[in-house]
Amino acid sequence: MAAKEEFFAGIPRIQYKPGAGPKDVMCFKHYNAGEVLMGRTMEDWLRFSVCYWHSFCGTGADPFGFPTIHRTWNEGAPMESAKKRLRAAFEFFTKLGVKYYTFHDRDMSPEGSSLEETNRNLDEITDLALQLQNQTGVKVLWITCNLFAHSRYMNGAATNPDCHVLAYAGAQVKKGLDIAKKLGAENFVFWGGREGFLSILNTDVAAELKHMANFFRMAVNYKEKIGLRCQFLIEPKPKEPCKHQYDYDALSVICFLKHYGLESHFKLNIEPNHTTLAGHSYEHDVVMASAFGMLGSVDSNTGSPDLGWDTDQFPMDIRNTTLVMKTIVEQGGLQPGGLNFDAKVRRESTDLEDLFIAHIGAMDAFARGLRNAVRIIEDGVVAGMVKDRYSSFGCGLGQQVESGCATLEEMEDFIKQNGEPRATSGKQEKYESIFNHYI
Amino acid sequence: MAAKEEFFAGIPRIQYKPGAGPKDVMCFKHYNAGEVLMGRTMEDWLRFSVCYWHSFCGTGADPFGFPTIHRTWNEGAPMESAKKRLRAAFEFFTKLGVKYYTFHDRDMSPEGSSLEETNRNLDEITDLALQLQNQTGVKVLWITCNLFAHSRYMNGAATNPDCHVLAYAGAQVKKGLDIAKKLGAENFVFWGGREGFLSILNTDVAAELKHMANFFRMAVNYKEKIGLRCQFLIEPKPKEPCKHQYDYDALSVICFLKHYGLESHFKLNIEPNHTTLAGHSYEHDVVMASAFGMLGSVDSNTGSPDLGWDTDQFPMDIRNTTLVMKTIVEQGGLQPGGLNFDAKVRRESTDLEDLFIAHIGAMDAFARGLRNAVRIIEDGVVAGMVKDRYSSFGCGLGQQVESGCATLEEMEDFIKQNGEPRATSGKQEKYESIFNHYI
Amino acid sequence: MAAKEEFFAGIPRIQYKPGAGPKDVMCFKHYNAGEVLMGRTMEDWLRFSVCYWHSFCGTGADPFGFPTIHRTWNEGAPMESAKKRLRAAFEFFTKLGVKYYTFHDRDMSPEGSSLEETNRNLDEITDLALQLQNQTGVKVLWITCNLFAHSRYMNGAATNPDCHVLAYAGAQVKKGLDIAKKLGAENFVFWGGREGFLSILNTDVAAELKHMANFFRMAVNYKEKIGLRCQFLIEPKPKEPCKHQYDYDALSVICFLKHYGLESHFKLNIEPNHTTLAGHSYEHDVVMASAFGMLGSVDSNTGSPDLGWDTDQFPMDIRNTTLVMKTIVEQGGLQPGGLNFDAKVRRESTDLEDLFIAHIGAMDAFARGLRNAVRIIEDGVVAGMVKDRYSSFGCGLGQQVESGCATLEEMEDFIKQNGEPRATSGKQEKYESIFNHYI
Amino acid sequence: MAAKEEFFAGIPRIQYKPGAGPKDVMCFKHYNAGEVLMGRTMEDWLRFSVCYWHSFCGTGADPFGFPTIHRTWNEGAPMESAKKRLRAAFEFFTKLGVKYYTFHDRDMSPEGSSLEETNRNLDEITDLALQLQNQTGVKVLWITCNLFAHSRYMNGAATNPDCHVLAYAGAQVKKGLDIAKKLGAENFVFWGGREGFLSILNTDVAAELKHMANFFRMAVNYKEKIGLRCQFLIEPKPKEPCKHQYDYDALSVICFLKHYGLESHFKLNIEPNHTTLAGHSYEHDVVMASAFGMLGSVDSNTGSPDLGWDTDQFPMDIRNTTLVMKTIVEQGGLQPGGLNFDAKVRRESTDLEDLFIAHIGAMDAFARGLRNAVRIIEDGVVAGMVKDRYSSFGCGLGQQVESGCATLEEMEDFIKQNGEPRATSGKQEKYESIFNHYI
Repeated sequence: MAAKEEFFAGIPRIQYKPGAGPKDVMCFKHYNAGEVLMGRTMEDWLRFSVCYWHSFCGTGADPFGFPTIHRTWNEGAPMESAKKRLRAAFEFFTKLGVKYYTFHDRDMSPEGSSLEETNRNLDEITDLALQLQNQTGVKVLWITCNLFAHSRYMNGAATNPDCHVLAYAGAQVKKGLDIAKKLGAENFVFWGGREGFLSILNTDVAAELKHMANFFRMAVNYKEKIGLRCQFLIEPKPKEPCKHQYDYDALSVICFLKHYGLESHFKLNIEPNHTTLAGHSYEHDVVMASAFGMLGSVDSNTGSPDLGWDTDQFPMDIRNTTLVMKTIVEQGGLQPGGLNFDAKVRRESTDLEDLFIAHIGAMDAFARGLRNAVRIIEDGVVAGMVKDRYSSFGCGLGQQVESGCATLEEMEDFIKQNGEPRATSGKQEKYESIFNHYI
Repeated sequence: MAAKEEFFAGIPRIQYKPGAGPKDVMCFKHYNAGEVLMGRTMEDWLRFSVCYWHSFCGTGADPFGFPTIHRTWNEGAPMESAKKRLRAAFEFFTKLGVKYYTFHDRDMSPEGSSLEETNRNLDEITDLALQLQNQTGVKVLWITCNLFAHSRYMNGAATNPDCHVLAYAGAQVKKGLDIAKKLGAENFVFWGGREGFLSILNTDVAAELKHMANFFRMAVNYKEKIGLRCQFLIEPKPKEPCKHQYDYDALSVICFLKHYGLESHFKLNIEPNHTTLAGHSYEHDVVMASAFGMLGSVDSNTGSPDLGWDTDQFPMDIRNTTLVMKTIVEQGGLQPGGLNFDAKVRRESTDLEDLFIAHIGAMDAFARGLRNAVRIIEDGVVAGMVKDRYSSFGCGLGQQVESGCATLEEMEDFIKQNGEPRATSGKQEKYESIFNHYI
Repeated sequence: MAAKEEFFAGIPRIQYKPGAGPKDVMCFKHYNAGEVLMGRTMEDWLRFSVCYWHSFCGTGADPFGFPTIHRTWNEGAPMESAKKRLRAAFEFFTKLGVKYYTFHDRDMSPEGSSLEETNRNLDEITDLALQLQNQTGVKVLWITCNLFAHSRYMNGAATNPDCHVLAYAGAQVKKGLDIAKKLGAENFVFWGGREGFLSILNTDVAAELKHMANFFRMAVNYKEKIGLRCQFLIEPKPKEPCKHQYDYDALSVICFLKHYGLESHFKLNIEPNHTTLAGHSYEHDVVMASAFGMLGSVDSNTGSPDLGWDTDQFPMDIRNTTLVMKTIVEQGGLQPGGLNFDAKVRRESTDLEDLFIAHIGAMDAFARGLRNAVRIIEDGVVAGMVKDRYSSFGCGLGQQVESGCATLEEMEDFIKQNGEPRATSGKQEKYESIFNHYI
Repeated sequence: MAAKEEFFAGIPRIQYKPGAGPKDVMCFKHYNAGEVLMGRTMEDWLRFSVCYWHSFCGTGADPFGFPTIHRTWNEGAPMESAKKRLRAAFEFFTKLGVKYYTFHDRDMSPEGSSLEETNRNLDEITDLALQLQNQTGVKVLWITCNLFAHSRYMNGAATNPDCHVLAYAGAQVKKGLDIAKKLGAENFVFWGGREGFLSILNTDVAAELKHMANFFRMAVNYKEKIGLRCQFLIEPKPKEPCKHQYDYDALSVICFLKHYGLESHFKLNIEPNHTTLAGHSYEHDVVMASAFGMLGSVDSNTGSPDLGWDTDQFPMDIRNTTLVMKTIVEQGGLQPGGLNFDAKVRRESTDLEDLFIAHIGAMDAFARGLRNAVRIIEDGVVAGMVKDRYSSFGCGLGQQVESGCATLEEMEDFIKQNGEPRATSGKQEKYESIFNHYI
C-alpha cells in the first residue's frame, strides 16, 4: 500500500541534543523548537520552510554535468512519481520537524499537452497535498508560478515581446492563485527569472516595464476578486539567467513598485545569495528592505562570495545568520513570511541522509543566529551605543531636521555660531569586537 | 602681467583634421563642432564639459603613491594658485574648444579657517571665474559641493550621526547654490560619497535616509527661494569610499526620491564607471535612467571592467560611446545636461600635452559614437526590427494589456482558444552583427 | 538516401561581399579567406574552427530552463542521430568555409552500457567522420575527452579521491588519443572542469595535484608510444563548475607544469571567457601565455564582463579581436593551434540561420581584428614607441641588467653618480588614441 | 626628557581576562600568550606582528578624503617625529604584548634630498630602533623596501622601462638588506606594487619579467655576500595600484620563480585581502602556498568580499581565522614567518584607543581560530574522514598511480575488469556541519 511506503527508512524524527558530539550530525544541537526567547518560541521566530524544487525535484544536473542524484520518488510515470514525491516530502517535513513548505506549480505536478490538462494534473496532485497538509499540520509558506523554465518563456513571461506568451503567463498565474487559496498559502511569490534582458539592442525597456506592471495589477485584481488573503512577494535577483533582470535588488523592486503605484500590494522575499550576486553584502537587502518597511520573507541560503552565480548552498555561516536574525527580531518577526531553505545539497552529496544533514546544519546555524541576536538585543549594549551615536537628533537643531522643518539658512546660522564640529570616532572595530563577543 | 601668462605654450587651438595620421594625436579626426547631424550641431548633441578637479587640481597621488603630476598653476600661495589655476583652465577650455566646465566649490578656492573666510575665498575666485566666463563664452555645466573630502565629513554629511556636521553641509550647500546662481550654472549636482555606511553594526539606516531626504528638501526650498533655475542632479555610485552608498545606482536613487516625494525636483547624473562598479554594463544606468525619464546628464568616463574601483579613465571604447549616444539622441538630447569628462589622465601621464591628448581622444571617441548612433537611427534598420518584435501589443489582447485594462481571466480564455505560443528567435547575434556594421 | 539529406536547405556557401549593407548578415564583409596579409592568407592566420558540442549538440537548456533549440539532426535513435549530426556539421563547415572542427569524444557518439560498447560507438562514428573529412578536406583542430559530464566524474577525474574513477578517466583518454591519431587531429586538449575543489574541508590538495601530474604523464607516455604527433594543450578555467579549479589561469597551469616537470609536453589553449572569469582583461592570458612561450591555441569566444559565469558568446568586439590578433601575429601565428569558436548561439536564437549569422559575425570580427593588427604592425608606430620606451636596456648598465650580470653594488654606484632619474610619461592615453586610429 | 614621554597614557599592559563582558574591549578574552596548545605556546603558534606603516604612519587619507587621524608622534620636524613615532610604536608593542613588528624603509625614516642623505637618515633611526629592540625584546619580523610610493617608481621599480629607475630600486634594496642584517630581521619581503602594467599597449611583458628576475637574483647574491640569513618572501597581489601585477596570486609567483630558477630562494607572504581581490576565497592562497611548500608568512588582515579594493581591515571572522590556523598548524607553524597585522583602523576610528581595540579584537579572533584548529586537529574527526576519502590510493592500482608508474593501458584493463565505479557522496554539508561544531 503506497501510503505506507517509507522513503527515509531508518531515520527517526530529528531530536534536540544540545550536548551531542562532532560526528552527531543527525540531531539539532541548537534548534529547540519550543524554547521561548523574547516571548516567542524559536519555531515562531524562525518559521522554517523546506523548498520542494531543490530538495525533492533536484537531480544534480549542472551546466557541465548530467544528473547525479537519483531519488526513488522520482521514478515511474509523471503523475505517479508526483504523488510519491509528495509523500516523500511530507515524510521529510515531519521527520525534520518543519511546519512549512514552498513550491512552484510545476514542481508539484507535470505540465500536460494543454493548459487544461496541466491544470487538471495540478488539481489532482494538490488534492493530495491538501490531504497531507491536514494529516500532518504542515502548511504552505508560499506558492509561486514557474514562468521561466518552459521554452515558451525564453524571452520573458510578463515582459515577453509577444503578448501571446504574456497571456500564457497570465493564465498560469490565475491558476496559481486559485491553488494558493485552496491550500491556504500564507504568501505568493513572483520571481521573474526571465523578466529582464540579454541584449539591450533588441529590447524596449520602457515597454517591458509597463507590461510587467500591468501584469502585476491583473494579479492583484484577481487576488482581490477571489478573496485570497495571502501576502504578495517579489523576489529580487540581479542576473542569471538574464544578463540583467528588472528586479535587480531590493531597491530596484521598490522603485518599480512605487513608479507604478503598486507598493501597497507587495512586499519583498529576499534571497541572500541573490543579494551577494548584486554586489552587496550578505545581509544587505534584508536590512534595506526592512528599513523601507518592505521585508516580507527570506529565502535563507548562501552563495560563495568568490563565485559569480547562484549556488544556493545551505547557510552555515553564524555571522550571517546572526545579522539576518537581528534584523528580523528588531522588526518584530517575519510572519506571515518565514525562512525558506531555497538551497540544494551539492550535486556530489548523493546520499539520502545528506538532505537531512544539510537542513539540520542550516537550521542549527539559524538557531545560533537567533540566540546570538536575542543576546545582543536583550543586552542592549550595541543598541545603546547606536542610540548615543545619533543623540544629536533628539533636540534643538537636530529635532528640527528630524521633523523636516529646518532650512539651509538655519544651518548656516548654526555654523556661524558654533563653528567646526568635533571629530567623533565611528568605532567600527569596537562594534565588531563586541559583535564577536556574542557569536 | 599675470593675465598674459600662457600655461600651454606652443599648443594652438585644436583643429579638426579628418585625414590626419596615427601619430597626429593633437587634432580632432572625428569631432567637427559645427557639423550638423539630425538637425543639430555635434557641439549641441555632445555638450562636452571639462572637469576642474581631475584636470586642474589632480596631482597623481594614489593610495599607494605620492604626487607625480606637477603643474605650474598649482604653485604659490593658495589664493594665488587658485587664480592661476583658473586662468590655466580657461586657456585649456578655449584651446580645446569646449564650452562647458564643472567644479566642486573646494576645487575652485581653498577652505579658510572659518566658514566665513572660506566663503569669502569662494566669492573672490568666482568673481574671476565670472569674468573669464564672460570673456570666453565658456559656461558652467554644473557645480557641486564637496561634502566628502574634509575630515568633518568622514562619517557622512547629510547622513552624519552628528547633526552639527549635517548643519555644516547645509551651510556649504547654501553657499554653493548662491554661487550657482551667480555663475549661471545650468545644473547642480549632489554626489554623496560619504552618504552610506561602512559597518551596518553602527548605523541606523532608516534614520539616515530620512535625514538625507530632509536635507535635499532644504536644498529644493532654498533653490526656489533664491530663484535659481538650474536642474538638480543626483549622481549614483555604489561604493567607494563607503562600503555601501545609499545612491547605489540609478534605480536606488529613483526609489529614494519616490519614497520621499522628491522625484519631481531631481534628475540623474550618470557616471558609467560608477555603473560598472555597481555590477551593470557600461551603458546600463544611462539606458535605465532614460527609460524612467530621469536621465539628466552624463559624467563621461570609463573604468576597466577587471578593476573594482573608480579609475576615472578617459572613455575610448567606440562601442560604449555609440550605445550611450544612441540613448541620448533617442531621448532628444541631454540639455541642460551634457557630457562631462569626469576623467583624469593616468598618474604616469605626466606631460602637459597628455591633458590635451586624453581629452581629444575621448571627444573623438564620443564623436564617433554620435556619428554611429545617428547612422543607426537614420537607417532605421534596428528600430524597425525592434518595432516588429513588439508588434503584438499594437492590437487585440496586446492593446488591452498595454492600456492596463486586461484581466487574468481574459488571458486564460485567450490561451484556451489559441493554445501554445509560437517560438520566436531573439536574434541577438543578428542585432550584434548589424550593430558591428555601424561601428 | 541519407547522404543527400540537406540540413541547411536554401543556404548557399557564404560569400565575401565587402560592400554589403547592414541587413546582409549572411555574407562576409571582412573575412576574405584567400587574401594575403603579411605573407600569409587570412585563412592561415585565423585557422578558424567550429566546435561540435555547442553548435551541433546544444539544446539551449540552462540552469533555469528546458531546451529551446530543436535540431532535426538530433532526432532519432542515438547512433542514427549521431550520424545525422555529423553530416549536418560537415554541411555547415563546408557552407561556412571553415577548415577545422573540434569535438569531445562524447559529443561525437553516445556512451554505451560499458566502456567497450562506448568505444565501439566511437569507432563507428569516427569512421564516418574520417570519410567526411576526406571528402571535404575539413580537418580536426583538436579532440578532447569529456571527463566532467558523466556523474562518475562529479568529484573529479584525474583528481578524484577514488582511484577507480581516475582509472576510468585514464581508459577514456587512451581511447581519445587513439581516435586523435586515426583522425589526424593537430592538437589534443585537456580541460579539467572537475579537477579542483568545492570545499577545502574535504580535499587533500597536495595529493590531488600529484595525481593530476601523474595522470598527465601517463598520457604523454601513451602519446609517445603510439607515435601520435599532435600538440598537447591544457585549457585554464578558474571556476565553474568547481568552486576552484587547479587550472585557474595561464600562470597557474604553467606553474603546475613546471612543478611537475611537464612543461615541455604541453602548451595552453586560452579561452578569453575563462580569462575574464579569472579577473583578468579579455586579452590577458593570450598575452601572458605568449610571453612565456606557451600559447598554443585560442578558444575564441567572449563573456559579458558584468556576468560571473561562462556565457560562451560569439566574440563581436573589435577592440578585443584586434588585441588578440596582434599578439598572435607577433608570435608568428598559432599553428598547429587555431581560433576555435567555443561559443553557442543564445538559447533564444532558435532559428537555424542564427548558427550561420553568429559564426559569420564572429569571423568578420576576427577578420577586422586581423586587418587592424596587421596595419598596426606594418605601420610600426606603436612598436617604435614601445622600443624607444625600453631603449635604456640596450647599452651600459641596462645591458648588464639585461644579461643578468649586474649587482646591487653597481646599482648603488650608478645612483651615487647619476642621482634621481628623470620622470617619463607613460603616455597611456596617447597609445589608446593611436590604437583607436586603427580600429 | 623624550624617553619618558608616554603616548598611550592611561592604557596599561593588556591583560588576558577570559570572563570579561561585552563592553570590555581592552583585554584579551581568548589570547593567552603563554598557554600551551599542541606542545607550543599560543605566542609561538601565532607570532603576531604589528605593522608600522598603517598603525604609526597612517593618517586616514583616502582617495576621496583628507587625513582624519592625527597622532602626536607625527608632529614636528621629519627626523624628530620619526624618533617619537618609533618610541610610540615600542610603547604600543609592549603594552599590547606583541613581540614582532614590520616596516618599510621609508616608514621608518624620511627620504632626504639624495640617496646618501636618505641612507644616513635610515641609519640614525634604525640605531634607535636597535636600541629599543634590545630594551624591549621586540624583534623585526620583516623589513621591506617601499619601491612604489615615490613618483620615480610610477612606471615600476624592477620592471621600469627606464634602467635608471631600476638602478635606484637596486640601490634602495641594497641598503634595505644591510638594515635587515643590522636589526636581525627574520624575513625580508618584496611587494611589487608597481611591478605590472596599466596598459598592455605600452608594455613589453617578456622584457619586464626578465628584468624582475634579474633584479631578484641581484638581491639573492647580495644577501649571500653579506651573510644575511633571513628568509626572502614575495607577497602576491593581483591589482591595485596596477591594473595587473605580475605577482597576481600564489601560483603566479611560484610560476615566475620556477621559470627563472629562483624558487629555492623565496617563499610567499600571503595577504588574504589580496587573495580575495584575486577572485579566490579568504584562505585559498594560504592553502595553495602551503600545498606547494611555499608558505612563508601571512599578512593577517581582511577585506570586504563586496568591495573591489584592498581595505586592509582587521581580521574578525572566526571561520576565516580557523581555516588559516588549521593550515598553519598542519604545516608545523610559520616560523620564521608570522602573522603580521597589515591592517589599519578605519579612517573614522580616530580615537587612540581604537588602535588597541582593533589589534586586540584581531588577536582574539586569531586566538579563537587557533583554539578551534587545535580542537579540530586533536579530535581527528575531519582528518579521519579525509583520509578515508582517499584510501583507494593506499594499495593496488591506486598505489601505482601514487608512485607514478601506472600506464593508461593498465587503467583500461582495470576498467574492463571492474566496470563502472561506485558513486560516493562528497558530503560537503556534513563537513560544514562538523566544522561549525568547532567554531
